[in-house]
Amino acid sequence: MDATEAPGHFARRFQQIAVAVFHAEVSAAGYELTPVQYAALAQIANEPGLDQATLASHIAHDRTTIGGVVDRLVEKGLVARAINQKDRRARELRVTDQGKQMLAAIAPAVAETQRILLSGLTEKEAAQFMKLFAKAIAALNDLSRAPLRAA
Amino acid sequence: MDATEAPGHFARRFQQIAVAVFHAEVSAAGYELTPVQYAALAQIANEPGLDQATLASHIAHDRTTIGGVVDRLVEKGLVARAINQKDRRARELRVTDQGKQMLAAIAPAVAETQRILLSGLTEKEAAQFMKLFAKAIAALNDLSRAPLRAA
Repeated sequence: MDATEAPGHFARRFQQIAVAVFHAEVSAAGYELTPVQYAALAQIANEPGLDQATLASHIAHDRTTIGGVVDRLVEKGLVARAINQKDRRARELRVTDQGKQMLAAIAPAVAETQRILLSGLTEKEAAQFMKLFAKAIAALNDLSRAPLRAA
Repeated sequence: MDATEAPGHFARRFQQIAVAVFHAEVSAAGYELTPVQYAALAQIANEPGLDQATLASHIAHDRTTIGGVVDRLVEKGLVARAINQKDRRARELRVTDQGKQMLAAIAPAVAETQRILLSGLTEKEAAQFMKLFAKAIAALNDLSRAPLRAA
């Protein structure tokens, strides 16, 4: 097998393209946000009050990375940290009004990114591809250093 | 669409897992090599004498990244740079005997990585998945900052 036809090569290429398309679409909409910052912001919006470790597992990133990502979102005024009254060592994360406005404003750019990523396939092929992709990844979840835990 | 069911999320997850599995398999075989170092080494072995810019385009990495990767391979004694006699500013890359031995030694670990990445799918599904993956990526090649140019 040619190395550029191996699944590991496709994995890297698709991720490289996904990041490039995300940046292009979000910048064109007038915003600056990385894919991982977006993933964290969207997840905090879905689960207001969750803590950082839970956030990391719900978007399948390692905790160290997510610590820095949340710091940046707080600096940008998009996320606020509050003390959890039941466990004072824990911090609850919430999206600020500014963060909610940004999520709404970039939603079309995010949707366009996902559309572009599947644009080489027919609708039927895209559905088949996503089904197989989900199945392949689900089987490998425990091999990842940062497994996904369903919210 | 849930953000964790979007193609951009799958792209990141699959790449994250691919890198983790590659490291685990190659370390277990007793070697230390990153996926991009491997991709560069294997491509230089396939095209002895190619220059760095060509290498970058043939494995779809940007030139800046590849400069550092080749530096590391030279430091490790796996690749040698030589002056091109026709264009003295250019450098020809070749895999050293040590590099060839390493490629042979890690080949089973690399093959095992690729097998594991598709292990959640039946043989028929894996073939279908790889076909759709190739098609999706080919259509997006020019959207990448580092398009793949066939060798």
